[in-house]
Amino acid sequence: MSPVRVAGAGLTPFGNVPERTGRDLFAEASTIAFEDSGVEREDVEAVFYGNFMGELSEHQGHQGPLMAEAAGVRAPATRYESACASSGVAVRDAVFRIRNGEADVVLVGGTERMTNLGTAGATEALAIAADDLWEVRAGMTFPGAYALMAQAYFAEYGGDREGLAHVAVKNHENALPNEKAQYRSEITVEDVLEAPQVSSPLGLYDSCPISDGAAALVLTSEAYAEEHGLEAPVAITGTGQGGDRMALHDRDYLARSPAASEASEEAYADAGVDAGDVDVAEVHDCFTIAEVLAIEALGLESVGEGISAARDGRTTADGDTPVNLSGGLKAKGHPVGATGASQIAEIAALLAGTHPNSEFVEGATTGVAHNAGGTVASATVHVLEVIP
Amino acid sequence: MSPVRVAGAGLTPFGNVPERTGRDLFAEASTIAFEDSGVEREDVEAVFYGNFMGELSEHQGHQGPLMAEAAGVRAPATRYESACASSGVAVRDAVFRIRNGEADVVLVGGTERMTNLGTAGATEALAIAADDLWEVRAGMTFPGAYALMAQAYFAEYGGDREGLAHVAVKNHENALPNEKAQYRSEITVEDVLEAPQVSSPLGLYDSCPISDGAAALVLTSEAYAEEHGLEAPVAITGTGQGGDRMALHDRDYLARSPAASEASEEAYADAGVDAGDVDVAEVHDCFTIAEVLAIEALGLESVGEGISAARDGRTTADGDTPVNLSGGLKAKGHPVGATGASQIAEIAALLAGTHPNSEFVEGATTGVAHNAGGTVASATVHVLEVIP
Repeated sequence: MSPVRVAGAGLTPFGNVPERTGRDLFAEASTIAFEDSGVEREDVEAVFYGNFMGELSEHQGHQGPLMAEAAGVRAPATRYESACASSGVAVRDAVFRIRNGEADVVLVGGTERMTNLGTAGATEALAIAADDLWEVRAGMTFPGAYALMAQAYFAEYGGDREGLAHVAVKNHENALPNEKAQYRSEITVEDVLEAPQVSSPLGLYDSCPISDGAAALVLTSEAYAEEHGLEAPVAITGTGQGGDRMALHDRDYLARSPAASEASEEAYADAGVDAGDVDVAEVHDCFTIAEVLAIEALGLESVGEGISAARDGRTTADGDTPVNLSGGLKAKGHPVGATGASQIAEIAALLAGTHPNSEFVEGATTGVAHNAGGTVASATVHVLEVIP
Repeated sequence: MSPVRVAGAGLTPFGNVPERTGRDLFAEASTIAFEDSGVEREDVEAVFYGNFMGELSEHQGHQGPLMAEAAGVRAPATRYESACASSGVAVRDAVFRIRNGEADVVLVGGTERMTNLGTAGATEALAIAADDLWEVRAGMTFPGAYALMAQAYFAEYGGDREGLAHVAVKNHENALPNEKAQYRSEITVEDVLEAPQVSSPLGLYDSCPISDGAAALVLTSEAYAEEHGLEAPVAITGTGQGGDRMALHDRDYLARSPAASEASEEAYADAGVDAGDVDVAEVHDCFTIAEVLAIEALGLESVGEGISAARDGRTTADGDTPVNLSGGLKAKGHPVGATGASQIAEIAALLAGTHPNSEFVEGATTGVAHNAGGTVASATVHVLEVIP
């Protein structure tokens, strides 16, 4: 398959800016992406846009054309929604569109405005990613759902809160030099263990924050990048998507994520790589346990061993396969619709040597980005590689 | 381009069933589609699902995996949203996926549950398809927006309410034999002109109803259809998408739909046909004026002449190019997320000779389906042809 070049990327700072609208955020991210890419807006042939809760937080649907306009682009635009994997699925269809020759230049991205809803409002809005009839009406929120998954993991494979705490500590440390990160503060294992409980066994520092933010990517075909002499050393070479039953009680596994496994198998095969080739990963750590499940699903750790990966230094910045060098959803923040595209931006920068944490992955050629929806009823995985 | 076969289609009755959930509706539509197709559910490789207002009407996002489950399918699933063109964009990405060899069998469709919101609630929910900051907060609803477009059309090209009334009369007549239609009642031009005004010049019978319903399509590659000996004489041979500024005041035209023109030009070129080849059309007549703008945008009528097309019998069942033989959104109903897929189902049945109105298009080989989002800030057009 022809690789799809990441010509440019732009992120707003992730954080708490309830006064900023979604269109304002996406305009900023796309402006940075176009400047970074050297691509002219008029070359864009299609816009792929991810957003999760705009109907609830901004009383705004139909955001495709609205965000094309915010980005200064006049091209057909579609909004993709797959809960927290909304821009992951947008990237996937964008990759297909370029590959199959339907477009040479596309704008992909996503936005979420959340903090204007307040914590309770945002928690309630996030719950629409779960099964309303069978989960939400019974009182389930996402901290509760992931807490169930953590309890199941502990019961099945062992491990404890201290193992999870190392994930949080690692991701906070990784975020320190990331200027776009919501939390740039060091924390200790003790801080995590002593933090208020949210839903046992998960505490405050096991949980990602509620965030506003946007991410944008300019993707091009190989031919366009060469013809225009773009500085675009990194390409998306593999894409995969998986699905699972929506409600936790219908799943075969609580302590595994088959949708992410399927997505990674498809993406690796698509790129012609395997898990052993992965030098660096951004995974969907909406809660610390989610990172554990993700690195196992992606084959970066054996099942049952992910819980010790951060503690034993295998996924830390100086480990064999650093995970979430951006700070992850945990410390960088999680503006839902922006997350999937932002992970691609982070991996591209890490591989290109332009990320503040690139020093930890010198010589790396292969990265993966894993984006999950809800309790991983949907997942996308993308493989990025440095093009020689 | 390799044609994409319409192997099966299923619709629920469109209408007023507030007690039925979205998943219930989509389960019914997809069950009919699978039975119609002769395709086994386990062969489905991806699900493309359109929904517009599920966050508001059912407190349910992330409907991709939920609806795959409702359809009895275990495959990656994505929800597409482009307001009233939500399943139009879903069909488009599905077509690309099959064409580029990424899948041989996909399930595409959409659902909307609306009547449980009541008329005022549904009207408010529909308004999120317009620009919240610049239109909705100023009090604009969709009847008002389309009324502005009708006024602009009358001012620019002439025409009057009576011309529009003939569109409504025609579509109600077409719906009479359609068992899935919401309104199967004959109306007269006088009925339309004497009906209560909704937003001048549009009255009650110029407006489509608020509807619940679902539509599903099983699409396959040429190779799969042949290998499995499917009875699938009709294929999607062209796809196009257009976009425009979101808010009416930012548009170049109030009385034209450039997004639909762009979509049709792309779709015709893609299929290798032109407007003169079109034997039958389903267009997005959410209001009578919308049908007029659509048939002009699609090149079926010259600009300024669409207003007389129904009155003068060019688009009636016995006319040269029948439009909305299903009854259209106007009489068949408009469960928003289902509409785009349902239009494809109608054209496929009309061309295959299995539609109750097929007698009016005997020997027809080429049809188009036009699906529009909001005030046509987004539009898709698909060309369907009988495969010899």
